[in-house]
Amino acid sequence: MLFRSLHSSKLQYLSLRCFSSATFPHVLKPGDVLKKSRVFTEEDVLEYSKVSHDSNPLHTDSAAARNVGFEGPLVHGMLVASLFPHIISAHFPAAVYVSQTLNFKLPVYIGDQIVGEVQANSLREDKNRYLAKFKTRCFKNGEILVIEGEALALLPTLDYRAAEV
Amino acid sequence: MLFRSLHSSKLQYLSLRCFSSATFPHVLKPGDVLKKSRVFTEEDVLEYSKVSHDSNPLHTDSAAARNVGFEGPLVHGMLVASLFPHIISAHFPAAVYVSQTLNFKLPVYIGDQIVGEVQANSLREDKNRYLAKFKTRCFKNGEILVIEGEALALLPTLDYRAAEV
Repeated sequence: MLFRSLHSSKLQYLSLRCFSSATFPHVLKPGDVLKKSRVFTEEDVLEYSKVSHDSNPLHTDSAAARNVGFEGPLVHGMLVASLFPHIISAHFPAAVYVSQTLNFKLPVYIGDQIVGEVQANSLREDKNRYLAKFKTRCFKNGEILVIEGEALALLPTLDYRAAEV
Repeated sequence: MLFRSLHSSKLQYLSLRCFSSATFPHVLKPGDVLKKSRVFTEEDVLEYSKVSHDSNPLHTDSAAARNVGFEGPLVHGMLVASLFPHIISAHFPAAVYVSQTLNFKLPVYIGDQIVGEVQANSLREDKNRYLAKFKTRCFKNGEILVIEGEALALLPTLDYRAAEV
């Protein structure tokens, strides 16, 4: 497993991340919430379609999206969900993703104001690293839950900058 | 829920997808496997980093990746996992993603030959649509399991082209 294989790995990189508490005043604890707001544009959807090779017409063809009951083209769920590893790695560079569950509850449209939230549920130290379980959610327009799930990541440290993203 | 909200949606689009059996000779059944092979390039990783805003150094900095025990820069797990909705929507245009679980078992490096597999587990008709549960896996070099999980998607039809991707 990816997680296990890392236990025997070289850990020199960790030593580079011994910052002072003045630089990293926050230490992650259960209950802490990290957030990132984003509005996905038509260009984002087109760029994601290119790099993922996902040409589902629901993302690019207004008529196709409306004909199947949506209000307009959808942002790819996996693009919206990319907020979760983005938030985690922005606060914890060199974090390693172990798992992610995703339930796509409601559509996300181009132009929607989306807030991704990653809430620490449990933290377990393991050979100078930390296995962190996060509740992962995206909301639109402040309160409408559009994606929910959980992520497991291996963090090199629990120290983080509060306003990094 | 996204799934429930679609039940009351307009279904005109479905009528556009009544193709002859000559055009769509395959009907999805439990056990069927759909595949797509891909090699992710450095450019793919850079483009995905841009569109996802995910700047984890493990994906772009060889020294950072090696220092944490990897052989080189990793392809983002969520980019590799994008093979699953890509495969599903390439065979079933206008498919709607409902959920996905992802366990990242082993690292995927730039240049690795990856095969994404989507295997139908169960199919349930629901108001002229089909709720399909898929086993989703990615292998590298033919046999090494790197990602595994499950996806749930709402398909407009069970007819598909065999060699669409």
